[in-house]
Amino acid sequence: MQKDYYFEDFTVGDQHPSIDYSVDKEEVIEFAKKWDPQPWHIDEQMAEASMFGGLTACSAHIFSVFCATSQNWLEPGTQHVVASLGFDKLRTLKPVYAGDTIHCITTVKDTRVSGSRPGVGVIVCMCELFNQHGEMVFSIESAFLMSMRPA
Amino acid sequence: MQKDYYFEDFTVGDQHPSIDYSVDKEEVIEFAKKWDPQPWHIDEQMAEASMFGGLTACSAHIFSVFCATSQNWLEPGTQHVVASLGFDKLRTLKPVYAGDTIHCITTVKDTRVSGSRPGVGVIVCMCELFNQHGEMVFSIESAFLMSMRPA
Repeated sequence: MQKDYYFEDFTVGDQHPSIDYSVDKEEVIEFAKKWDPQPWHIDEQMAEASMFGGLTACSAHIFSVFCATSQNWLEPGTQHVVASLGFDKLRTLKPVYAGDTIHCITTVKDTRVSGSRPGVGVIVCMCELFNQHGEMVFSIESAFLMSMRPA
Repeated sequence: MQKDYYFEDFTVGDQHPSIDYSVDKEEVIEFAKKWDPQPWHIDEQMAEASMFGGLTACSAHIFSVFCATSQNWLEPGTQHVVASLGFDKLRTLKPVYAGDTIHCITTVKDTRVSGSRPGVGVIVCMCELFNQHGEMVFSIESAFLMSMRPA
């Protein structure tokens, strides 16, 4: 049976690693053609000749990989999120190359009971994406409202 | 002939409206199925019965619309961006519904010459997405390095 994650299940310092996600070449090209058609995201030859040395995923693609992996923890469960409060400190730290395998580590940074809304609490997490070499490629701070465990 | 936008072409207070982008239902469902498969993004009947009252685009989809529209100004041109320095204050303010037409207004907030890299400058912009009713649905602060105009 899957676990249910409520506000009470988050403690500062907890870490939740995700399953792996493989970013394949076709997806890099298809995503960027639609949303960010720069040559280093869509043209393999130009990308190899560029400062990056190969096709790299666009920021919107990496943000999407973050959205997907940050929900897919190795220990699966239902996260009872009520609403996002926003994201800060979004940084693309290293290129994500076509063929990379990415995972996310979510670290709980702050938890507090909502002063205005009964039954919910605020969680702040730092989410970091790593490639198959252990290099951090992306980080972002996410704040969200979480349901408290039903009585 | 298209304009070339260099560091010198950015002045605090300048605004750059984008072309419109229409978010259609099929795209909302397809995007969310891949990256954020919550019922209110992919199941029309459940979405209509939810607090949202209809299918809404997922955050990664809205961020992608921001990436696309913030590059597509009504006055077209080549933006000589060197690198992103990151994004802050990402806020999803109102739902983006299937069928909405979105545009971006980019406002220049800060410009400064790089202390460490000759030939480039730092630009900070606030980018705001609006729907067809004039409601702001998303905002984000973007900082990036921009080439200076060649001598």
